[in-house]
Amino acid sequence: MTTNEKIAALRAAAKAAGGDAVLLMTSDPHCSEYLPDYYNALPWFSGFTGENSTLVVTGTGSALWCDGRFYVQADRQLAGTEIECMHDGSAGVPTVAEYLAAHLNAGQTLLLDGACVPAKTARAYAEALAKNGAALKSCDVAGPIWDASGERPALPATPCWLLTPAQTGATAAQRIEMVRADLAKAGATALAVTGLDCVGWLMNLRARDIPNTPLAVAFALVTRSACTLFLAPGRLSGADAAALAESGVTVRPYGELLDAVAALDAGEVFLVDEAATNYDLYTALCAHKTLPGADPIFARKGVKNEVELQNIRECHIRDGVALVRFEMDLEKALADGRTLHETDIEGMLQTRRAEQPGYFDDSFPAIAAWGPNAAMMHYHAEGDTDSVIERRGFLLVDNGGQYDCGTTDITRTYPVGPLTDDERRWYTWVLQSHIDMARAVFLDYCTGFALDTFARGPVWAHKINYRCGTGHGVGFISGVHEGPQSLRPRNDIVFRPGMTITDEPGIYETDTVGIRIENELECVDLGENQYGRWLGFRPLTMVPIDTAPVLVDELSRVQLDWLNAYHAEVYKTLAPRLNDEEKAWLAAKCAPLGR
Amino acid sequence: MTTNEKIAALRAAAKAAGGDAVLLMTSDPHCSEYLPDYYNALPWFSGFTGENSTLVVTGTGSALWCDGRFYVQADRQLAGTEIECMHDGSAGVPTVAEYLAAHLNAGQTLLLDGACVPAKTARAYAEALAKNGAALKSCDVAGPIWDASGERPALPATPCWLLTPAQTGATAAQRIEMVRADLAKAGATALAVTGLDCVGWLMNLRARDIPNTPLAVAFALVTRSACTLFLAPGRLSGADAAALAESGVTVRPYGELLDAVAALDAGEVFLVDEAATNYDLYTALCAHKTLPGADPIFARKGVKNEVELQNIRECHIRDGVALVRFEMDLEKALADGRTLHETDIEGMLQTRRAEQPGYFDDSFPAIAAWGPNAAMMHYHAEGDTDSVIERRGFLLVDNGGQYDCGTTDITRTYPVGPLTDDERRWYTWVLQSHIDMARAVFLDYCTGFALDTFARGPVWAHKINYRCGTGHGVGFISGVHEGPQSLRPRNDIVFRPGMTITDEPGIYETDTVGIRIENELECVDLGENQYGRWLGFRPLTMVPIDTAPVLVDELSRVQLDWLNAYHAEVYKTLAPRLNDEEKAWLAAKCAPLGR
Repeated sequence: MTTNEKIAALRAAAKAAGGDAVLLMTSDPHCSEYLPDYYNALPWFSGFTGENSTLVVTGTGSALWCDGRFYVQADRQLAGTEIECMHDGSAGVPTVAEYLAAHLNAGQTLLLDGACVPAKTARAYAEALAKNGAALKSCDVAGPIWDASGERPALPATPCWLLTPAQTGATAAQRIEMVRADLAKAGATALAVTGLDCVGWLMNLRARDIPNTPLAVAFALVTRSACTLFLAPGRLSGADAAALAESGVTVRPYGELLDAVAALDAGEVFLVDEAATNYDLYTALCAHKTLPGADPIFARKGVKNEVELQNIRECHIRDGVALVRFEMDLEKALADGRTLHETDIEGMLQTRRAEQPGYFDDSFPAIAAWGPNAAMMHYHAEGDTDSVIERRGFLLVDNGGQYDCGTTDITRTYPVGPLTDDERRWYTWVLQSHIDMARAVFLDYCTGFALDTFARGPVWAHKINYRCGTGHGVGFISGVHEGPQSLRPRNDIVFRPGMTITDEPGIYETDTVGIRIENELECVDLGENQYGRWLGFRPLTMVPIDTAPVLVDELSRVQLDWLNAYHAEVYKTLAPRLNDEEKAWLAAKCAPLGR
Repeated sequence: MTTNEKIAALRAAAKAAGGDAVLLMTSDPHCSEYLPDYYNALPWFSGFTGENSTLVVTGTGSALWCDGRFYVQADRQLAGTEIECMHDGSAGVPTVAEYLAAHLNAGQTLLLDGACVPAKTARAYAEALAKNGAALKSCDVAGPIWDASGERPALPATPCWLLTPAQTGATAAQRIEMVRADLAKAGATALAVTGLDCVGWLMNLRARDIPNTPLAVAFALVTRSACTLFLAPGRLSGADAAALAESGVTVRPYGELLDAVAALDAGEVFLVDEAATNYDLYTALCAHKTLPGADPIFARKGVKNEVELQNIRECHIRDGVALVRFEMDLEKALADGRTLHETDIEGMLQTRRAEQPGYFDDSFPAIAAWGPNAAMMHYHAEGDTDSVIERRGFLLVDNGGQYDCGTTDITRTYPVGPLTDDERRWYTWVLQSHIDMARAVFLDYCTGFALDTFARGPVWAHKINYRCGTGHGVGFISGVHEGPQSLRPRNDIVFRPGMTITDEPGIYETDTVGIRIENELECVDLGENQYGRWLGFRPLTMVPIDTAPVLVDELSRVQLDWLNAYHAEVYKTLAPRLNDEEKAWLAAKCAPLGR
């Protein structure tokens, strides 16, 4: 089927179902950032493969909204189809709600799959439609067409496993009690847990359903007296099923959540976050008493416990050893005059990580970008775009691993030949930004927004900015992007000891260069005095930062001291796990810089 | 009358008025921070003279709440009276609302003067009382007792004057139109202007009703078709009254606001801020349609126009000349071996400011604090507490002037003899904080909270904090503390070019030392590039910062460059107005620091 044929099929099916238009968006019943392919109907119907998109098909037309990252890609992928490409956020471009209000008249009905649209989004559309007397109805128009095509992927159902208390520091029973206590504090008694990361945290449950993110497609339901895991049958080993039963968890099939909600007695009060609950589930929950509020697991899992932190520190040591060996391999390949492509890097990293115990996946597809390619923040080389790594400028490598003791994320920018004066300056300024974030000492009321400016100060001084956050939270054997904490404008989460965060400022000059230096940091308690409780950061990542490009005179004394102390710690931490040649290499990389 | 007699009189009057308890608080019909004495009944009845306080008198007891700044003073001033002293915010101390809920029973009534309590506060108390079936009623119980005593001050009614468009850059007519446009944008048509600074801004009206703050006790009422100034008769000159009439302003007696509100037709929609409107006025406004929202004048007056900025720059030059001469006087007095008291400083400053054209008042009572006294942030020497300025350590002098072209606020910390190593270190760290704020370059989305951390970074690095904001907005020939912008935790006002702000970090070591370095800064546009709109600060204050205590090696190169550039500008700006001796003195003070 061509794209236009698929759109026509949607249009006909909508009509058959009594609707006048249909809306698809890149969301799933769990309001996930990265969807299982099974739920991602929009790319199959439209041909557009980017993220964060919405497609509307009316009786006479169709339009697709994409965000700024994807304007060029969407224009290209939609060319030749009937779909109008909407650059969301550009001047003069209607929003989805405005388009719906303009195209649906009184008495008409928009159909959308309420399981794959957040309730808050559905409500906004319903309000826009209501102004004209039009309405919205939950109806999965796309699913049957896609199923019938034979091209729809299956719902993932990889084998599940439970993390042990030695890994996570808490049993499912203990975590369920924490959630019940949080609910009680909020005046609620029940919670439908929909985020895959939240279900994973609550149950210590892991699987391989999502690429790079070791989670299972599942729901949980916590009430005063019961806790239920909704998971496709046969995915748990007998031992794990028994362990969950011991923690008071009943297992039911994945599809039965709405039935279970409907069957609950009237005494339950649900805590519900309209933005993180799909529309169908939200409708079902509203048959009970509800209170608005965020899933308390979101805040809980942002703060790692001491057992998790010990494991995380260990996984960064393993990752550091792998990275040292990778970088030696890279230097050797360059020294030998081998022709290296950007796409060679991912395999070289995987080879070295695979030597480490407990490694089982990458935490995201590695980014290796040479020279001007690195100016594209989310560049991923493949096919046509794969460049040879030339022997000048920088090679940016952003990568991470999933281990049985944690999840890593690291970026280094390697000089691979002569550098320009600008390149040295930019590298040095990014390093200053990285260091100023890492060495920050602050009182315990600071939000991500307030801290973010520490990192931006050194590049802002030169009127340069990076158009992204300084850093994001990292899950524990889970998603590499996990909040709620982040270092970015307008983030209002207050930092707490035990939060982990990336520190990854950069400079990106279009068609010229991309430089990023990223460590993971642990937020630590620095003690209390008359002024209050002091917090700071401790680097988790244990990998040298290339000092060859650094203009030492640009660094302040405290910045230089931080860098030298970091390198001393990296050497001391990794050396016991390295052979003599590796140790010598590392000692040279970690040599203190002087003026 | 003793305090207990006054409390008994309140109790009896409440009973006579049908009430069971009475509440007084330090507020006025304008929700002012600094009250005209006429409205400040609480000190006369209780004997407690601090700020931000509440007194509750029930049939059987009485209690007064004070904040942390005043615990000691309140304990002392209430000793021997029947009034229980409540340290507001301390563990185990009930809030006012909790106390009311505990002491008033079903059917009982609390009386408060609704004109002198913000509506939001009254509502919170009413809700606390309602839980027990008790109620709240607006009734001025205290006024008649105080009036009868013959000890109540009169409502201030100093001569008023209008600032000219050459001073403010806008006529009242223009400003009224700005406000109408803001109201229309918010969907409203009318505004009761209650803040004295807001009335002053709107009407270009000034007077001397409040010490150090050249404003008039007045209200304004803006509707679609009219604008009324409520001001006691006879306070305006004929020419000023005519100018206001030309701007479309009708003048009515001060007491007629509520009548005027009641007489409006039903078509008006009021924009109302419950936290900044007194309870009686709020009740009157609620007879009309209302929308919740802040007085738009608040945001408007935070951003100075180009005429105001030119005047402000000029007033800082005049102030700089006065400060140079004051500091030369101070050095000479010290060199001559004269015995100086802290209380001598205010007069020395006034002498030099009085030489400058357009000076007519101080912007607040000067703070001069020697040595350990300066550790108390709001120290003001008088009587018993006046210390001799010894010839060691620091003398902190925080002061400012009111001129016909602006309002100033400056702090310098002068070394008056040998310094300890700690004193030099602390002084240097405060200077680093001051400089890091002043040299900040930032994008145009930054709030006061996000910017505040720039200044705190250098002192936080040593686990030292100052328990106050880094800086506050400054009015234009108006209050020396005027928002909405400020540099402090949790402030969410986004900085804009034309805002003026103080930059006054400090270190305060109890019983040891207080160091503060304060300039006023102007927020300036640094141009736009691919990353967005860049903002920064330009110093308004033109007075050398003593470099003798500075540990030069602690400063980074950019900090040192900032300091030297600032001193070069101070010299260049002030020298044309100084004689040869003064120029030579200033040149030495402004000499560049090297390593």
